[in-house]
Amino acid sequence: MDEFVVSGAFIVTNSGKNIADGAVAIKSGRIADVGERESVLREWRGAEVIEVPGRVLMPGLINCHYHTGLTFLRGVAAASDFEAWMDDYVAPLEASLDEEASYAAALLSCWEMVRSGTTCFADMHLNVEAVARAVEEVGIRGYLSQTIADSYHFKGMDTLKVNELFVRRWRRKRGLVHPMFGPCAIRLTSKRLMLESAALANEYDSGIHTHLSENLNDVEYSLRNYGKRPTHFLGECGLLGNRTIAAHGVWLDDSERALLSRTGTTVVHNPTSNAFLRSGTARVRRLLDENVNVALGTDTAACNGNANTFAEMKQAFLSSMIQDSRETVQPSEVFRMATLGGAKALGLDAGRIERGAQADMVVLRPEPFMLPLEDRLWPFENEIVLSATPSNVETVIVAGRIVLRDGRLMTTDESAIIKRFSVSAQALLAKLK
Amino acid sequence: MDEFVVSGAFIVTNSGKNIADGAVAIKSGRIADVGERESVLREWRGAEVIEVPGRVLMPGLINCHYHTGLTFLRGVAAASDFEAWMDDYVAPLEASLDEEASYAAALLSCWEMVRSGTTCFADMHLNVEAVARAVEEVGIRGYLSQTIADSYHFKGMDTLKVNELFVRRWRRKRGLVHPMFGPCAIRLTSKRLMLESAALANEYDSGIHTHLSENLNDVEYSLRNYGKRPTHFLGECGLLGNRTIAAHGVWLDDSERALLSRTGTTVVHNPTSNAFLRSGTARVRRLLDENVNVALGTDTAACNGNANTFAEMKQAFLSSMIQDSRETVQPSEVFRMATLGGAKALGLDAGRIERGAQADMVVLRPEPFMLPLEDRLWPFENEIVLSATPSNVETVIVAGRIVLRDGRLMTTDESAIIKRFSVSAQALLAKLK
Repeated sequence: MDEFVVSGAFIVTNSGKNIADGAVAIKSGRIADVGERESVLREWRGAEVIEVPGRVLMPGLINCHYHTGLTFLRGVAAASDFEAWMDDYVAPLEASLDEEASYAAALLSCWEMVRSGTTCFADMHLNVEAVARAVEEVGIRGYLSQTIADSYHFKGMDTLKVNELFVRRWRRKRGLVHPMFGPCAIRLTSKRLMLESAALANEYDSGIHTHLSENLNDVEYSLRNYGKRPTHFLGECGLLGNRTIAAHGVWLDDSERALLSRTGTTVVHNPTSNAFLRSGTARVRRLLDENVNVALGTDTAACNGNANTFAEMKQAFLSSMIQDSRETVQPSEVFRMATLGGAKALGLDAGRIERGAQADMVVLRPEPFMLPLEDRLWPFENEIVLSATPSNVETVIVAGRIVLRDGRLMTTDESAIIKRFSVSAQALLAKLK
Repeated sequence: MDEFVVSGAFIVTNSGKNIADGAVAIKSGRIADVGERESVLREWRGAEVIEVPGRVLMPGLINCHYHTGLTFLRGVAAASDFEAWMDDYVAPLEASLDEEASYAAALLSCWEMVRSGTTCFADMHLNVEAVARAVEEVGIRGYLSQTIADSYHFKGMDTLKVNELFVRRWRRKRGLVHPMFGPCAIRLTSKRLMLESAALANEYDSGIHTHLSENLNDVEYSLRNYGKRPTHFLGECGLLGNRTIAAHGVWLDDSERALLSRTGTTVVHNPTSNAFLRSGTARVRRLLDENVNVALGTDTAACNGNANTFAEMKQAFLSSMIQDSRETVQPSEVFRMATLGGAKALGLDAGRIERGAQADMVVLRPEPFMLPLEDRLWPFENEIVLSATPSNVETVIVAGRIVLRDGRLMTTDESAIIKRFSVSAQALLAKLK
């Protein structure tokens, strides 16, 4: 089905006006037309038509910070802090992960993301080739990087080499897998690896995925070891720029925000993880006001519980409301972070329903939340951000292909994913006991 | 179907050990038996059996603070504060609500709660008889009260009289509707009405639903007008006790917590609403440590977006984590608030899967979140609190009756609910423009 029309929906275009009774034509993975239903159907007579009357059609959500491999730790160590979580659970688990376990976790994660309306995600993981296999199998779009580090269980592994090979193998394929470099974080990755990551990313013309000032310990570490704050250190290493996504950005001062803005670096906001790990509360309002591009991420299920970008949008709004009133971020702004912000961060022409953009879209059943569809005194995006849950997700289209329909995965066998994950989980958790 | 067995589930009993492959026998609305599958099936040979292999069976969630009528304002005035929200939206909307609109909103709310795993809720609303009709139609359990107030649009209405008639009519029926008195809040309800509410609640041996110290203005108002803090004022009015649910309790001092503890008054924690309206962050850890019974509430969709008690549990955990580390509330404690805490608050023998208790239960499809079901290094309740969404809810049983099955309402017509709500919403929102 290279060419088809989705017809009869309330279209949240994210690009000007919404369309009450609209249709979208899809051709070769792109949005070929969008407009009033009658006129699109007339124009595309002969194309297959998928009728979705009374549904909401919106751009797919983009989850810009995730770690597929840690999905086995869902529910772990709640009410812990970052150090305990890392030392007691994450590090031992990661040290036990083989290719099969990583593949099983990635399949489950990709399925979970698709069924909660996410069409694209950025991941950093140990066994990156396993994640790539899962991405292709499920049919979600993945911006993938190897965790580049040389402490903990990463000691002795040439993670940079693995990442380089991965980038070489995938960079020209132009499919669902987009390779990136993943210099992990200031406390896990030496300066040498940071510098070499930047040089290779430059050489291969590739994006960079890193962590930035997730908690106060990061800032202290940077000041103590490098005599400067983390953003300046990343800048010195050549890691900032408009192809870099920097996760968290909780502890930034004025000079750091200015540097992020000037270099076009994206900050990925992860409000649930930041609360879960007591990292602090990012000042997103200031980032937006200073023209820093902000995307949204769920971070791993091990410090969230879900990979649900709808819930993350709501949390981004709520976490802005527990700060002082000058920090308020409107739901409509959060919606843009999870769509246009993510797309810009990754250099992907998506996040909006507009002619020429990638056909990455979600069909929502509006009931019982978003009723009626019209006649609102407030932006319709509010209701998506505050109310939508995975139970509203009916159909998901990625790169013009229907990946989920009526809530069921069309690309691969759900029960096989469940079985595979359960087997790996039982083996891994037995080792950790 | 007065007698049946639900068989093959992982049972979260909330009363001692969980059961990996269990069954529950239900008879005349109560749990008649619970245990290992084989032994329950042997004991109840001949009874109808509902097989739910690989599912999770848990007590139904209890939403202890809601206002059905404000559902029309879902998505409104986000990033506002309490005063603006009340004056610009809530008050004008409520002033326009007729019986039909209240009934339509209550039907939608009851459906929304059931499909997100809530089997019982406490509501305060203007047209309480309309809510009662909806409760009976949908088949959820409702502890209902009229909003007793004499300011705003309540001026001139004899809300206490309406509430008294409602209590008289329903108190002996012993069905799904449980009447309570609803003296609303310190700034909306005069001292005279507070005192008379307490006297009538005593006379009719009825519960009380009120608001307590939702925000700092409540405390200031109480100090200025009554020379004491709100909890002491409620105590002076005779409103505290083990049949009182007091919503919010954000701003309480030591003496107030002690008084709540001594009188057995329940505080209903509403973390999403508190963030949404910038009310502050309740210190739930201290309430628990001082033996105050704490229940959980979503508050209205107009200051939440949902009536989803699963999301509220997660928010209760996260909101404890953004405070200092001495305020941590564990997910397993939050789970008890939303089950046993709510049951205790309402004097309902529910919140656990145990012989003799009310058969108010939820069957969850665990995928893709809660896998595998066993072999965890942490309480299984963590995963429910951190991960479950309405998309996991498969079957809901209230008072031994199957109200939702395979995600569909069994009691009344979903599409009629949608249509009715949309018609009322369009009319109301047109008036507000």
